[in-house]
Amino acid sequence: MANKIFVDACLGKETPYTPVWMMRQAGRYLPEYMKVRAEAGNFLNLCHDPKKACEVTLQPMDIVGVDAAILFSDILVIPDEMGMDLSFVKGEGPKFSDPITCEADIDRLIGGDEAASKLTYVFDTIKLIKQELAEDKALIGFTGAPWTLATYMIEGQGTKTYNICKKMMYSNPALLHKILAKVTEVIKLYMEKQIDAGIDVVQIFDSWAAAIEPSMYDEFSWKYMVEICDHLKAKYPNTPIIMFPKGIPTFLDKVYGNFDVFGVDWATPMELAKEKLGEKYVLQGNMEPCRLYSQEETTKSVDDIQKVMGTSRHIFNLGHGILPDVPVANAIHFVSECQRISKK
Amino acid sequence: MANKIFVDACLGKETPYTPVWMMRQAGRYLPEYMKVRAEAGNFLNLCHDPKKACEVTLQPMDIVGVDAAILFSDILVIPDEMGMDLSFVKGEGPKFSDPITCEADIDRLIGGDEAASKLTYVFDTIKLIKQELAEDKALIGFTGAPWTLATYMIEGQGTKTYNICKKMMYSNPALLHKILAKVTEVIKLYMEKQIDAGIDVVQIFDSWAAAIEPSMYDEFSWKYMVEICDHLKAKYPNTPIIMFPKGIPTFLDKVYGNFDVFGVDWATPMELAKEKLGEKYVLQGNMEPCRLYSQEETTKSVDDIQKVMGTSRHIFNLGHGILPDVPVANAIHFVSECQRISKK
Repeated sequence: MANKIFVDACLGKETPYTPVWMMRQAGRYLPEYMKVRAEAGNFLNLCHDPKKACEVTLQPMDIVGVDAAILFSDILVIPDEMGMDLSFVKGEGPKFSDPITCEADIDRLIGGDEAASKLTYVFDTIKLIKQELAEDKALIGFTGAPWTLATYMIEGQGTKTYNICKKMMYSNPALLHKILAKVTEVIKLYMEKQIDAGIDVVQIFDSWAAAIEPSMYDEFSWKYMVEICDHLKAKYPNTPIIMFPKGIPTFLDKVYGNFDVFGVDWATPMELAKEKLGEKYVLQGNMEPCRLYSQEETTKSVDDIQKVMGTSRHIFNLGHGILPDVPVANAIHFVSECQRISKK
Repeated sequence: MANKIFVDACLGKETPYTPVWMMRQAGRYLPEYMKVRAEAGNFLNLCHDPKKACEVTLQPMDIVGVDAAILFSDILVIPDEMGMDLSFVKGEGPKFSDPITCEADIDRLIGGDEAASKLTYVFDTIKLIKQELAEDKALIGFTGAPWTLATYMIEGQGTKTYNICKKMMYSNPALLHKILAKVTEVIKLYMEKQIDAGIDVVQIFDSWAAAIEPSMYDEFSWKYMVEICDHLKAKYPNTPIIMFPKGIPTFLDKVYGNFDVFGVDWATPMELAKEKLGEKYVLQGNMEPCRLYSQEETTKSVDDIQKVMGTSRHIFNLGHGILPDVPVANAIHFVSECQRISKK
């Protein structure tokens, strides 16, 4: 079996160069993706169709040349299968028609294995991808963090202010904890099943980490993410876990837990992340995605990151998802520059 | 003339207690504000009507008991008077019909004193407020930072990704600098005229500071803000200046400039701000605005902040604007707790 350079890098092993992938690499900047998405009719159909989801997952491997594929799916398939009615309204993003407001709403949600088992289209997608993915490339599976999922389940949609969930946080924290605990149980089983289906690496996205004030973050988000890590590591000690809490640069020294890689967002200087976390965890990141608008600025940034990180205990990535209007040639340039500049 | 405790606190002088105000204190959580706004027809009419703008500016003084008033206006009146056509679309926020895309667009903008002189309704509002404001209360005038204003002028509206301005930043930085320089000149004169009309303190809001990656922040935002400070301090050395760049916690040690108060957002721990900046600047902030949903959580937070800051070189505030659905009683509770807990 061929060595997967990406998995080796996650585990802190020496690799011939620093591997690279991009958040949202299977996405709208690729005309090939837009074509499949148009065929699917809408975004959710695409998530539900293993053949098409497999196809878009694999597109950036050949086109852009990244070292790992990331499962094409959406973080909100979990609450959807827990019985909340997910839809994507054009131009407005995801919507749940019946947001959670009380204990009875939580009790009505489908939990545990019953919910996780409904996500068969995800596991089928993983199996298809693994049949086609080159042996030396890795497949990343993922989940949203309980807090990030809860924000949508409580607000009913994306939010700028998070005022409904934060009202709950400060005036009825027990209710929020009850939601988080129920979601956490589903995530544990969902990620087990993703691993069983064939993913090589787990990434947990806490996209809305920055919505919680620093002194409350552990209580309402991080400890649940760590609980998921502990659960998975007990059963699958060799499957690397990447944690990506976006926007917690002021308390990196409080980060703890049994995982392998810490994803650094673009607003957190790599020097700071290395100083606070570089000994404990492999670091992933963190080029500002808008640098991709200029090939010159991309090279400059890759070079700067490389100077900070050296040639080990690092995975190149963007510090947030690639934007739809980035020229494909510039994405290719980023990936090849990462591989060239870090070559030993 | 009575001493203004708020001005004293800005200058680092001893005060009988730590003064307090709230960002967006003249706002939608107050039924009295909603009434005047309804009479005005829309938000922009309210900004243009000195009598009504004066009325809403003064409302929180009596109702909530804050130690300073902040001029009711909008940061976007500047680009509006520079010749861009500002409108507020219900539910969507501010819009400019012709965003800036090239040098000719910038050349067409009205600049310098000609633009600043058109903001007479703001100066008239200030004069009215000063006639009615108690002598021991201060009036804060304000402006958006050049970068924050430029984001709207380039994107044509609010944005989640800032991709149009950041494309300009990375692929045509000279064009962005040309916009920033032109806006900076208008702001200097606008703030001079606000001071001449009677404001006691200046606050510069860089609401979208966090949109710029740390290594680029000085070049595209902070240095222009400092240029404004230098200009104002040369003419008005006794007028305190508050800088509020939201979301730059990772490089507080690089903050410099001739101003008096640094506004701390809620995501930046007060301990960190005190350690990095507390000797050089008075600090303002930084309760998480959603704590206002619970009186108990409010008291806890005020107490925590007070323990870090002690009884000098501090001004109480929220770490961001008060939200529309906060009960007025809770805002009153916040203000009185700040004044009670910090009393000497």
